[in-house]
Amino acid sequence: MADEAATILPAESYPMVGGDGDHSYAKNSSYQRAVLDVVKEMINEAIADKLDLKTLGFDTSNINTFRVADLGCSVGPNTFIAVQNIIESVELKCRRNSSALEFQVFFNDHIENDFNTLFNTLPPFRKYWASGIPGSFHGRLFPKSTLHFVHSSYAVHWLSKIPKEIVDSKSPAWNKGNIQCTGFVKEVAEAYSTQFKKDMESFLNARVQELVPGGLMAIVLSGLPDGIRNSETAEGKFYDFLGSCLADMAKMGLLDEEKVDSFNLPLYTPTSKELQVIIERNECFTIEKMDILKNPMRNMKFHPQSGIRQLRAVLEGVIKAHFGSEFVDQIFNYIATKIPESLFAIKENKQHSKVILFVLLKRIID
Amino acid sequence: MADEAATILPAESYPMVGGDGDHSYAKNSSYQRAVLDVVKEMINEAIADKLDLKTLGFDTSNINTFRVADLGCSVGPNTFIAVQNIIESVELKCRRNSSALEFQVFFNDHIENDFNTLFNTLPPFRKYWASGIPGSFHGRLFPKSTLHFVHSSYAVHWLSKIPKEIVDSKSPAWNKGNIQCTGFVKEVAEAYSTQFKKDMESFLNARVQELVPGGLMAIVLSGLPDGIRNSETAEGKFYDFLGSCLADMAKMGLLDEEKVDSFNLPLYTPTSKELQVIIERNECFTIEKMDILKNPMRNMKFHPQSGIRQLRAVLEGVIKAHFGSEFVDQIFNYIATKIPESLFAIKENKQHSKVILFVLLKRIID
Repeated sequence: MADEAATILPAESYPMVGGDGDHSYAKNSSYQRAVLDVVKEMINEAIADKLDLKTLGFDTSNINTFRVADLGCSVGPNTFIAVQNIIESVELKCRRNSSALEFQVFFNDHIENDFNTLFNTLPPFRKYWASGIPGSFHGRLFPKSTLHFVHSSYAVHWLSKIPKEIVDSKSPAWNKGNIQCTGFVKEVAEAYSTQFKKDMESFLNARVQELVPGGLMAIVLSGLPDGIRNSETAEGKFYDFLGSCLADMAKMGLLDEEKVDSFNLPLYTPTSKELQVIIERNECFTIEKMDILKNPMRNMKFHPQSGIRQLRAVLEGVIKAHFGSEFVDQIFNYIATKIPESLFAIKENKQHSKVILFVLLKRIID
Repeated sequence: MADEAATILPAESYPMVGGDGDHSYAKNSSYQRAVLDVVKEMINEAIADKLDLKTLGFDTSNINTFRVADLGCSVGPNTFIAVQNIIESVELKCRRNSSALEFQVFFNDHIENDFNTLFNTLPPFRKYWASGIPGSFHGRLFPKSTLHFVHSSYAVHWLSKIPKEIVDSKSPAWNKGNIQCTGFVKEVAEAYSTQFKKDMESFLNARVQELVPGGLMAIVLSGLPDGIRNSETAEGKFYDFLGSCLADMAKMGLLDEEKVDSFNLPLYTPTSKELQVIIERNECFTIEKMDILKNPMRNMKFHPQSGIRQLRAVLEGVIKAHFGSEFVDQIFNYIATKIPESLFAIKENKQHSKVILFVLLKRIID
């Protein structure tokens, strides 16, 4: 019997801001939307070129449900746009077949995600049966061999937890003075990288079980260009600036110093090579495509107010979990006052920017 | 392509009270829980005697996912108890087979249901992959032929809407002075009964599509004993008392009279015969079992405070939608003050009580 279902992996959860208020992810995710736009054509090509409906059994047997999962979907509208695009591509591919395909879509995110808002904002006219799947994608979420297409955008660079040595003052990997993996301390970088490897292995191992043989998985994540360290990129610099704001607030007595020292972002952006090694070691997927795309925002003007709102929509959960909800407004307000003077430093560094990693995997046929 | 998915039936939604506060359905659904306990053995027997795993393809083909849906699940814990019982019964039945069955469970309710609370209270150790399905069960919710067992408890006696003639002062079916189908005005009873028929037909037509041939459906609902009218039962009398409270409040100027006149409960409890006729007319299900069970609460002492809380957990949504949220506390507080004097009238009528209708249907094999 399915006792595996009882094995719930512990994973920390930092949901995007729910609802549809001023601070919500729903209203402040234009960055993630821009990524979607860049990737759209690649998903369409992937489905046109790499999806083999015959292998999946749609041509011959009486299977007529095509199952799509969006893992780490948050609350929309981005997830609805991504899913609609996938379905339209599959429909286009099937047009020559007369089979009456139906689509079932599974929207997944942590249990703490705002599924009420997700459901309330579902497109009223949609070509699929919608479903919400609560739980960490580092563990199993679906029965064996039931998914045909898995999509995950800007989600797998979130770690399931901060490696414990990062906050251990006795460890050489103690990350004092930083809130992220800057890339400049070898032991810290290794600890972060090891956690990312473990998380990706759990992610891939779960998907191997859930995807049908021949099923596709498109993973989109934030990555580093080869040879560039996190804090050399504009984005890394921006998070370092956030760290300096927290340090300022500790010095001014507005935040507890120990709390600031122990705060680290559960984010890791790998290079494409790092990712490739992890996938190849898994041996259950073929890499059908791996692309390094330029950051769509790199030439856009930075608007401090909208920048802060986007930052908050993504990080409020992490900040709240660590510092307590009573400090959230204060922290983001302080950052907002400091942004203008930090802009110069961030712009200076604009030659380096994070990239979008796009990977298309096919589950091997046993 | 699955254009049917785009056809969203309009249905009004009156969710049970969400969250886990003092007024929540989660904390005030002991009545529905008692019903579950009564029905438990019947579900177990149904699975033992009537579920044919061979017909469903589990014995021969490589199908290994058993899909269960609970329609109108609200927020737990009752739905979790019901689902666990179903799964344990299927497991017991499968014990002689070595097949590694996995269970996927779909928890369905209106979009406005509190799915966040549902997901947050899921049993941490469970033998199934959980999923939330937002939408009215009067329309399609799932792809064709994908469900093996459908369960719905105390949900289908909720109508999708109040028939319009009920609130039309020019109609002979105008229900002035009452808030429910008392059973004493022929035209009113016919309007309610016709709406229930339409709703059940929509419900059955959707399930015919979604259940695999040979799949089972257990429907549990509140019903009337033959020859007894709604307002002759203790429960009907209790709702009439609620109506008289609203009328009092209108007379006292606390509620708008027109609002009170136009308020009707979207509830209809049929007799077993009425239900049987509707199912037989559908022609897509065989009735494997139809039982009339006694109300489990009929001999229990009535506790006014807990009675009010249970009433509120169920009716707050309807009251709020009609009168506005600012009147909810006032209305339930007024009812609470009146309950002691109404008890005598309700007790007097205790010889008649609503019944539980249990129906087990099997989808015919084309």
